[in-house]
Amino acid sequence: MAIDSHTNNTGTALNKSVVTFDAPLNLACGVVLSEYELVFETYGALNSERTNSILICHALSGDHHAAGLDANGKIGWWDHYIGPGKAIDTNHFFVVCPNNIGSCFGSTGPSTTNLETGKPWGVDFPSLEVSDWVASQKQLMEHLEIDCWSAVIGGSLGGMQAMHWAVAHPQKLKHAVVIAASLKLSAQNIAFNEIARRAIESDINFKQGNFLDYQTSPTQGLALARMIGHMTYLSNDALGQKFGRLVRSGDLDGAEKELVEFEVSSYLNYQGDKFATRFDANSYILITKMLDYFDLAQDHQNNAVDAFKQAQCKFLVVAFSSDWRFSPSCSEEITDALVSADKDVSYLRIESNQGHDAFLLPNEHYEKGLGQYLQRVAQTLIGAQS
Amino acid sequence: MAIDSHTNNTGTALNKSVVTFDAPLNLACGVVLSEYELVFETYGALNSERTNSILICHALSGDHHAAGLDANGKIGWWDHYIGPGKAIDTNHFFVVCPNNIGSCFGSTGPSTTNLETGKPWGVDFPSLEVSDWVASQKQLMEHLEIDCWSAVIGGSLGGMQAMHWAVAHPQKLKHAVVIAASLKLSAQNIAFNEIARRAIESDINFKQGNFLDYQTSPTQGLALARMIGHMTYLSNDALGQKFGRLVRSGDLDGAEKELVEFEVSSYLNYQGDKFATRFDANSYILITKMLDYFDLAQDHQNNAVDAFKQAQCKFLVVAFSSDWRFSPSCSEEITDALVSADKDVSYLRIESNQGHDAFLLPNEHYEKGLGQYLQRVAQTLIGAQS
Repeated sequence: MAIDSHTNNTGTALNKSVVTFDAPLNLACGVVLSEYELVFETYGALNSERTNSILICHALSGDHHAAGLDANGKIGWWDHYIGPGKAIDTNHFFVVCPNNIGSCFGSTGPSTTNLETGKPWGVDFPSLEVSDWVASQKQLMEHLEIDCWSAVIGGSLGGMQAMHWAVAHPQKLKHAVVIAASLKLSAQNIAFNEIARRAIESDINFKQGNFLDYQTSPTQGLALARMIGHMTYLSNDALGQKFGRLVRSGDLDGAEKELVEFEVSSYLNYQGDKFATRFDANSYILITKMLDYFDLAQDHQNNAVDAFKQAQCKFLVVAFSSDWRFSPSCSEEITDALVSADKDVSYLRIESNQGHDAFLLPNEHYEKGLGQYLQRVAQTLIGAQS
Repeated sequence: MAIDSHTNNTGTALNKSVVTFDAPLNLACGVVLSEYELVFETYGALNSERTNSILICHALSGDHHAAGLDANGKIGWWDHYIGPGKAIDTNHFFVVCPNNIGSCFGSTGPSTTNLETGKPWGVDFPSLEVSDWVASQKQLMEHLEIDCWSAVIGGSLGGMQAMHWAVAHPQKLKHAVVIAASLKLSAQNIAFNEIARRAIESDINFKQGNFLDYQTSPTQGLALARMIGHMTYLSNDALGQKFGRLVRSGDLDGAEKELVEFEVSSYLNYQGDKFATRFDANSYILITKMLDYFDLAQDHQNNAVDAFKQAQCKFLVVAFSSDWRFSPSCSEEITDALVSADKDVSYLRIESNQGHDAFLLPNEHYEKGLGQYLQRVAQTLIGAQS
């Protein structure tokens, strides 16, 4: 296991590690992954009882770098919420964030080498389900000699992992924090993912997924996929307030009008192009399918109440008012099922005009709600120690 | 002028005509179109006073074939609302529906021949604004020797044409029926259009808009553009009710799971591919830009009330509850501005779970509301005759 440590001016010290697992991982699709690597970061210190750990589950495009500054000076994607004195308080908790398999930031996935062939996995990487991510996180947990997470926390696809943890490994977590998630995707959500996948697959450089063999990348398709995704993460209001109908080249008249570009177009093109340089197209296809296929109640006759009856942990469910990708009604469906299953559940509906992206962004009420919940969790740790 | 007449089993007789205008059309972009053709259909009979005509304005992907069956047996896109005894009652009205310039169903546009070069216009077709469509419709009106429309009716981009008619030619219409439209597009709407355009432009077969010279077509990009558009025309509820999470190939397990395709994906891919065979990519880019640039109040210091003060006609504004592309709040903004401008306006908010597409689909309350309004208009014609 390689370790790379940093302390930096966000106030959050991080350890980045890579661990290789050679115990086979039996994937839901039937394929056995004989060996795989996980890259992960940790923040804060594990207490001597090894009881204060929190697992952070990233979403579609996330990675292991959730907090602090990495070696390149890049700030973590959830730095606003993880650190000393922050909502996920590293003065109390040992926070673990892995890059999940199938993704493309160092852990085993389509862009890493398949040891059996000596070539990148590419399109041959096996299809995954949320349960596979949880299974690999459980191997990481055992590697870290943690018997039970204080909490498993995630937004969006991360929230789906938190729910799966609660149902599949009821003894292995005390709290599940399920943010801006859903029991399963709606037809509309699946459709947006399908359009994104088709954008990638119809790029001439996709080469039926074998683009790495051709030393190319379907960047146009990937940029389009991201633009579609990005639009559905934002609210109409937030976009309107940020851009309105501002144009980039001034308000030209007549023949020059075709040169006018709306600020929102320019912003979106930039976001798409930037993403295409950092993400792997096969990973994008793979992970959007994980979203599509997730269905918590599937193995319980489509009854979420029955599914949640397995759970032993407490729950915090969080939703954002303007999120139309995973709307508050999705979170309320989760909460209602938990209530019906006689579980201990708190529900926090946050006013925000930031859409689905709100779960990543600063919001005082959200910080307070999440922070106070976890402070109470931290107090139970101190209570157990004394 | 060529005329092609049909009577058919939808009960609606149609005349299809092509007219060539050789009076120059001064476009908003500064270019002068020296000659152009309009294809149009008419339904019903013009009365001897020539006072009973209704202009139907089509939207982004519409055409002149609004009602009845054409020579190929294809039913018109608004047949449910136009015909004898229907909401737009051809027993009373003479209904005119042109295919607008810049489109691709016979009227002059990117896919027709530029007489100056002998080649298709392609990407060189001048950029258009809603005012250009209205100007060409006014030339058609003069050609038909109609002095004043009983009503100008349109949904979506069609509603924008109806509003422009009311403001630009106040003496030339008695009623404007503005359905599922907006004073201008939101940043979100512009963004979706931008993604659609980028999908087309990044297709390898787009050839910078010169695809006709290469005897090809950016069908993949165009299909994607349509899929994106189509998603935004539908409501989440309607999609959920229609498809839910139904899968096409049965609910497979294990390794076969990657073969599973959700019904909604299959539907959307089909819609996209079908559209790509019938629409011109340059027209799609051109007309989505018309939508983006439309801004009724632009020439009135961004004051819609001032803009509407020009109008002399009466207004019916119609919105659909689940339309999130042009939501009821857009229609209410139009209605409020009309009230403030002291205009005669009725507002009809229709409960529907069909999203933006509702304006094209059967809906009893919508049929009644629109039909009753136009019946009162028809009665004023009879009153004027007697």
